Amino acid sequence: MKIYELAAAPSARRVSIFLAEKGIEVERVNVDIRGGENLFDEFQAKSINGRIPVLELNDGSTICESIAICRYFDEMYPSAPSLFGDTPLERANVEMWQRVVEFQGLYTAMQAFRNISGIYKDRENCVESWGHESRQRVVEFLPTLDKQLANSAYIAGDKFSVADITAFVMCGFINNLDITIDEMFPHIQDWYERVSQRPSVQA
Amino acid sequence: MKIYELAAAPSARRVSIFLAEKGIEVERVNVDIRGGENLFDEFQAKSINGRIPVLELNDGSTICESIAICRYFDEMYPSAPSLFGDTPLERANVEMWQRVVEFQGLYTAMQAFRNISGIYKDRENCVESWGHESRQRVVEFLPTLDKQLANSAYIAGDKFSVADITAFVMCGFINNLDITIDEMFPHIQDWYERVSQRPSVQA
Repeated sequence: MKIYELAAAPSARRVSIFLAEKGIEVERVNVDIRGGENLFDEFQAKSINGRIPVLELNDGSTICESIAICRYFDEMYPSAPSLFGDTPLERANVEMWQRVVEFQGLYTAMQAFRNISGIYKDRENCVESWGHESRQRVVEFLPTLDKQLANSAYIAGDKFSVADITAFVMCGFINNLDITIDEMFPHIQDWYERVSQRPSVQA
Repeated sequence: MKIYELAAAPSARRVSIFLAEKGIEVERVNVDIRGGENLFDEFQAKSINGRIPVLELNDGSTICESIAICRYFDEMYPSAPSLFGDTPLERANVEMWQRVVEFQGLYTAMQAFRNISGIYKDRENCVESWGHESRQRVVEFLPTLDKQLANSAYIAGDKFSVADITAFVMCGFINNLDITIDEMFPHIQDWYERVSQRPSVQA
């Protein structure tokens, strides 16, 4: 079993923190995205859409998408604490926040970065004005997160979950957009400081 | 227990088909999105981000996000066939395809529609060139779906799953973008025809 990834990418970071939280070790293979290695035939055969990370099982079958990989390990190792919640209501709540943080936060921030920075313009059309609009939407999303963290210790309630991992990675990534979590967002600041202490994110 | 929704919206349709597949009946309340009712204080208190659908439980707590609502019902009614998969590998596979179809298909199509049609321009900035780029990306995604359906009866394998619901709603929605599933995509056509026969989508 091994994971193909680009270690610095937000999606790979999400999987890394998740595995560290669960105490699971998996062989990692770095894929040179910038050099286009993920576009080569061999990698394309492993990945539905040529994207990383990809988990390859011992029988050669593969699972793409960071959250699908996390869920696989969560269910394969049920004895470690679940990061997707335990009861149906907890699991729905984690899914809700994971999705809200991903769609309005991390994914929107990545759209901003891809369209503003132009780093990927050799392989996709960039629309800079959409990049700036996306950046603005990330800024407008932060109060929602701050309000939630005023009422609960973690994003989806009183337990650390995969939604915290997505939000933590997002808060780091938005530095690329010159967005900082300042004193306007005291509850995000407090939560970020607490999550930063976890061994899983310091690895 | 009740669901606040706009019946014609893709997200509400996903929940409707899901509940019909599971054989669950829930009271539905229509929310006038176009009229801005979802922006009113009472609704804002129920929804994290002012969006529909929202499931309100009997104790007044709420769950937003269509897939989170679906997962709640899937886990509350485990005796009905799971639409998220049964084994860890099945569940990872369903999650992978559900995400791929949502991010590259339905969500991208909705971004295309929102930015091209201008219907929401009274409440968000529209970037028409991003709309056209998004439309093109949906077109470029369809071969991935056709290739998968050449090898399996349903999107995530040999069982109908929530990934099929997302893909089915997407295939209907892209008519708004003048994209049709034509003979270029024979496997999508065959699958669409089969799914169209299900009582859950005819309701």
